[in-house]
Amino acid sequence: MDITSVREIYKNREKFLDKKITVGGWVRSVRGSKNFGFIVLHDGTYFEPLQIVYHDKLANFEKISKLNVGAAIIVKGMLVATPKAKQPFEIQADEVSVEGASASDYPLQKKRHTMEYLRTMQHLRPRANTFQAVFRVRSLCAYAIHKFFQDRGFVYVNTPLITGSDAEGAGEMFQVTTMDLNNVPKDKKGNTDYSQDFFGKETNLTVSGQLDAEAFAQAFGKVYTFGPTFRAENSNTTRHAAEFWMIEPEIAFADLCDDMQLAEDMLKYVIRYVMQEAPEEMKFFNSFVDKGLIERLEHVVNSDFARVTYTKAVEILEKNNDKFSYKVHWGTDLQTEHERYLTEEVYKKPIFVTDYPKDIKAFYMKLNEDGKTVAAMDCLVPGIGEIIGGSQREDDYKKLESRMDELGLDSEGYEFYLDLRKYGSTRHAGFGLGFERCVMYLTGIGNIRDVIPFPRTVGNCEL
Amino acid sequence: MDITSVREIYKNREKFLDKKITVGGWVRSVRGSKNFGFIVLHDGTYFEPLQIVYHDKLANFEKISKLNVGAAIIVKGMLVATPKAKQPFEIQADEVSVEGASASDYPLQKKRHTMEYLRTMQHLRPRANTFQAVFRVRSLCAYAIHKFFQDRGFVYVNTPLITGSDAEGAGEMFQVTTMDLNNVPKDKKGNTDYSQDFFGKETNLTVSGQLDAEAFAQAFGKVYTFGPTFRAENSNTTRHAAEFWMIEPEIAFADLCDDMQLAEDMLKYVIRYVMQEAPEEMKFFNSFVDKGLIERLEHVVNSDFARVTYTKAVEILEKNNDKFSYKVHWGTDLQTEHERYLTEEVYKKPIFVTDYPKDIKAFYMKLNEDGKTVAAMDCLVPGIGEIIGGSQREDDYKKLESRMDELGLDSEGYEFYLDLRKYGSTRHAGFGLGFERCVMYLTGIGNIRDVIPFPRTVGNCEL
Repeated sequence: MDITSVREIYKNREKFLDKKITVGGWVRSVRGSKNFGFIVLHDGTYFEPLQIVYHDKLANFEKISKLNVGAAIIVKGMLVATPKAKQPFEIQADEVSVEGASASDYPLQKKRHTMEYLRTMQHLRPRANTFQAVFRVRSLCAYAIHKFFQDRGFVYVNTPLITGSDAEGAGEMFQVTTMDLNNVPKDKKGNTDYSQDFFGKETNLTVSGQLDAEAFAQAFGKVYTFGPTFRAENSNTTRHAAEFWMIEPEIAFADLCDDMQLAEDMLKYVIRYVMQEAPEEMKFFNSFVDKGLIERLEHVVNSDFARVTYTKAVEILEKNNDKFSYKVHWGTDLQTEHERYLTEEVYKKPIFVTDYPKDIKAFYMKLNEDGKTVAAMDCLVPGIGEIIGGSQREDDYKKLESRMDELGLDSEGYEFYLDLRKYGSTRHAGFGLGFERCVMYLTGIGNIRDVIPFPRTVGNCEL
Repeated sequence: MDITSVREIYKNREKFLDKKITVGGWVRSVRGSKNFGFIVLHDGTYFEPLQIVYHDKLANFEKISKLNVGAAIIVKGMLVATPKAKQPFEIQADEVSVEGASASDYPLQKKRHTMEYLRTMQHLRPRANTFQAVFRVRSLCAYAIHKFFQDRGFVYVNTPLITGSDAEGAGEMFQVTTMDLNNVPKDKKGNTDYSQDFFGKETNLTVSGQLDAEAFAQAFGKVYTFGPTFRAENSNTTRHAAEFWMIEPEIAFADLCDDMQLAEDMLKYVIRYVMQEAPEEMKFFNSFVDKGLIERLEHVVNSDFARVTYTKAVEILEKNNDKFSYKVHWGTDLQTEHERYLTEEVYKKPIFVTDYPKDIKAFYMKLNEDGKTVAAMDCLVPGIGEIIGGSQREDDYKKLESRMDELGLDSEGYEFYLDLRKYGSTRHAGFGLGFERCVMYLTGIGNIRDVIPFPRTVGNCEL
């Protein structure tokens, strides 16, 4: 079908003005009077709608005036400029054909609905303005991330979702099985007999692709993952989902400084890209969701991120312990309240906190020369706190092995990981960015359920 | 670290010639003589390696000559042109520092290894030439697909992996659970009590995001998914994996013709992009994996795909039934042998076969006016057979409902899907492309295990 999108019309109006064109979309509202009427049409390709004028010369004039909100129509007519009106142009319809009517109980009427109400209709909510804006920005944000890495020669690697390892106990995992749960096979000792399962062993959904990505970084130099990740945590918060997407770059011949530079460059690139490609959506968020959003993002793009060691950060925070519910001292993990205080009150811009105590960080992080901190970094941004966590990886076989021993990790599942330190080990680093948290940051949306098309949280797996 | 990649050097040699630069990579071979030696260095950013010349003026000259294959080194020196040699330039080293030695049992020695052998070391095989080429092409292919759709205004939608529906019985599914398999909770009737599971009901890993994508197409007009998909089929073939990635575009205000045009445009775009961005890799495949590959792909790019109805195709095939193990008649599904005969022998180019009998296709496909076929299409390409399957979707509420009744589908799980036909239904269409099959097609690699970084097949879930 030769249909012109509303986006094309807005982006390239000179090409279409005073021409006969065909558009297809959904009715946002109809106002019919005796001899003519107006339709506000939205086709999903652009945030702004298109106005249609129709007259009683159309054979189906009456029918059009009675269309319910949500009806799909195809309109043929002339695009004309409307210099005196609010909208820049309109279509004077020669023909309006009803592609699909909308039942009168269409739940998205022309009024503001609560996010809670819209969450009950995941299949229809993408038609609402807020979700039009959210999911377009999500899409652009994903593409910006791919473009950033591809333009810099990174290789995209799809690390596996189903895994036989338990990935450093980073969180509760979902189990994957094809066994009949009504009749689980047992071995001689009476335990579950995983040899009869699909993969012949116990398998889970991954919590991180990092260790696999490291193997690829040691072959391609610079790689990134971008795929789904899972946590079976029974936590019902606005920031946690059971299924979410994560970006994990990994770079060889690189240290913690290179890692921070990469994270800063990436964040700035993604913000710039989305502000440039979705100005209408960003304006909407700034007006209706999070006043001050654009100013905050512009500040991030134009700031050099600060860098402070954990030890120094704790010194600063300790002096302000009276302001916090959780008191800080060296050795404790930082809470969101501390992170936000640092980035919002002290530095007033994004910061990297580096060199955390080894005991609050993962086993694979590179031990610093002091023997008690590791080359880790968290990136904290105003308005949200931690958005990125990364580290230089331990590249020394013996140090890694002894750290694993200390923590009681069974080296059996990590032989491949140790091999990477045996055959041409390099200093290398990487980080993880939770994709949904990035989208929340870019849109000001406060609940992770509202930036995921079909969110999965404890007790919720609809559609 | 200020490291220049081998890719940058090859792509922008004038900038670096006769300059001091630093490179980092892994040793492919070392040939040391009395006073000097050569290293073939590979850094993973480019298919071709870089030659390093080192002399005995270096303090660690002896040590360098004894490096094992696979060692990681950092080299500082001058890049000089070598007009009389096979390689275009080399680095005359001022300094060679060993970043990480390689143990003498490094399994990737400088000889040809079988694919089976390399499959036993998934963490090291990406360093081998074949997998350097495969996984770079995989990455470029993924990006080309994103770029194709984004440049055309499609919205990327992440449909969920964990699902409560059983998706039209398209295949065996993996179950996802957090229940203790040693002690599965039972309800009063003695059946598994899914109310105690994480989501409060039985959940599986998705086999397709299509139905969810349709909901988004009815909001954004043009959308695509690109994510992992799962099949728990106990089939040990070269073309099936338990976990693979799929691309599923869905377009509103579009019929089967639009769908075929989109598929044809996409395939041609992706082939052109990869041939342009990875000429060295494609030349390698053409020489060592699949002679004739480049010619075949160029033919596809320059052909108008043919279109033939299933009924017509069966007429052609029936005349040649003596050539096939499975005899064809109207109503049977086409096998790979038939598909390849049509595209390779009859049409000698890619073809779309359309309008299949409804009984061999899925319930959601649009019923044609003849009442016995549906508006489906399969895209068949020389050398592989089916690569894409798609259809126009049934957009009529009553026809869809009665087809579901006919097939005994419980409408309860499909209420949202029926709703899409109740509130502004549009003619719409989409297709599915198996990503790994696309990569196999582009590289000539014959086993799906060799185009997936860490493949999952029945009985295999390593790393």
